[in-house]
Amino acid sequence: MSIVMRGLEVAGSMKEKLQEEFLALKERGIIPHLAIVRVGARPDDLAYERGAKKRMNTIGIKCTVFEIPEDVDQELFELQFGKINSNPEIHGILLFRPLPKHLNEESLKGLINPLKDVDSMSPVNAAKVFSGDETCFAPCTPESVIEILDYYNIDITGKKVVVLGRSMVVGKPLSMLLLKKNATVTICHTKTKNLEKVCREAEILIAAAGKAKMVTQEMVGDNAIVIDVGINLDEEGNLCGDVDYKNVEGKSSYITPVPGGVGSVTSSVLAKHVITAAKRLNCI
Amino acid sequence: MSIVMRGLEVAGSMKEKLQEEFLALKERGIIPHLAIVRVGARPDDLAYERGAKKRMNTIGIKCTVFEIPEDVDQELFELQFGKINSNPEIHGILLFRPLPKHLNEESLKGLINPLKDVDSMSPVNAAKVFSGDETCFAPCTPESVIEILDYYNIDITGKKVVVLGRSMVVGKPLSMLLLKKNATVTICHTKTKNLEKVCREAEILIAAAGKAKMVTQEMVGDNAIVIDVGINLDEEGNLCGDVDYKNVEGKSSYITPVPGGVGSVTSSVLAKHVITAAKRLNCI
Repeated sequence: MSIVMRGLEVAGSMKEKLQEEFLALKERGIIPHLAIVRVGARPDDLAYERGAKKRMNTIGIKCTVFEIPEDVDQELFELQFGKINSNPEIHGILLFRPLPKHLNEESLKGLINPLKDVDSMSPVNAAKVFSGDETCFAPCTPESVIEILDYYNIDITGKKVVVLGRSMVVGKPLSMLLLKKNATVTICHTKTKNLEKVCREAEILIAAAGKAKMVTQEMVGDNAIVIDVGINLDEEGNLCGDVDYKNVEGKSSYITPVPGGVGSVTSSVLAKHVITAAKRLNCI
Repeated sequence: MSIVMRGLEVAGSMKEKLQEEFLALKERGIIPHLAIVRVGARPDDLAYERGAKKRMNTIGIKCTVFEIPEDVDQELFELQFGKINSNPEIHGILLFRPLPKHLNEESLKGLINPLKDVDSMSPVNAAKVFSGDETCFAPCTPESVIEILDYYNIDITGKKVVVLGRSMVVGKPLSMLLLKKNATVTICHTKTKNLEKVCREAEILIAAAGKAKMVTQEMVGDNAIVIDVGINLDEEGNLCGDVDYKNVEGKSSYITPVPGGVGSVTSSVLAKHVITAAKRLNCI
């Protein structure tokens, strides 16, 4: 039976430290402030927004939601975004993506102040994640995986880590964060041959493929550590990860559940980033 | 016995295509122009400069060397660099690095026009290499490895490729270029455990560790393809790669020599980038 790595436990332990840092800033008269910029009202965005607001609230971080009509044109959107971006009282900006198709996301990536880019959309932060520069803001989900490994004292130096998925949201930045921590990283994807064998050799297997229950028992080595980044719906419409949890948990040594795993940590990483941004913008 | 993959052959085949593209630009009145910016006169830089000038010459590309005294201060250097950067007749800029220690390299990375950044120092290009955006300029050495694999018709889709080294000059960008071509990439480094075994399982092994002859016969699987990016001096002061060539070539199916392998292709990739830059800057 696996030890279940619970996201809420990790988030709980992060909270204490974040509250300390928040109070230290507050004493200096600085209230960390996150702007959430949402175009339209997609259910996914609204769900994430609720979680983020709640998390910021618990710590004391101010959170303002800027709701922008879905039919906004590029010029007006950039004007509104520019105001948020240059507002000295706002330290972090989370822009929900993808944007509606008529808007140019690339130009926004170039506009955002990299110091406020708490969800890592700017190429400046992408380049820093790539090069291993610790002044980066990495995307929240891959950093959550690192927080979980750290919380459970899992030393990854030299370990064989297989990352399943090569997206810019999870797979690639996560691979760079793992490499920075001296893991030996293998990046797999839909074109990988002998996927089952490659995964089975992993000491740590991280599933970020976006395919429900695709990681079967046969793909997991004895006592491997399994982290599931997937969020999918199964045949019955229930939330599930990329890992066939029921069949894998008997074989792995540690495992994250879905829900209640990686997804429960992301809003804490976001809060951490907002506090870091508030510090940096105030040269602390 | 291995098939020896010769860099000059690859460069020769690239030359034909580059000359065609050069002539097409010349007919429109555009002469692609590379600026080489060299601070001081390090022997390594001078050697690379000679090779680059010769290659540009063969194709017809104009090449101007800007030699800047080693004791230049940051302000004056940025002023001079800025002039080159904004000169509309210059399409590509190669700045030799590392710069002398009293100069701030980071600020130059932010200054260079990403469209002229033919040796990939700008974070804009780094982020594009990372995300797999084909409008990037990748660093010349990793792209040379891809040119060699392409020339020898080696299909890497789904193949197990091991990259030894995680530098921003070779290992990391090369891993991203290989991933873009659908290889299954494992990145190894000094902290990797069981390095011998990990390397031996590679169908394609790429050595970019910067350690003379460190890839021994035991680290190479039967019929593996071995590409050597290293440039080192052996005990006797002779040029050698990261691969123990004499002992490996009997085991591998393909191998690149040092000298005469990857290093013989880089200036052709640089020429390709200058021509691409001239096209893009002229919206062709």
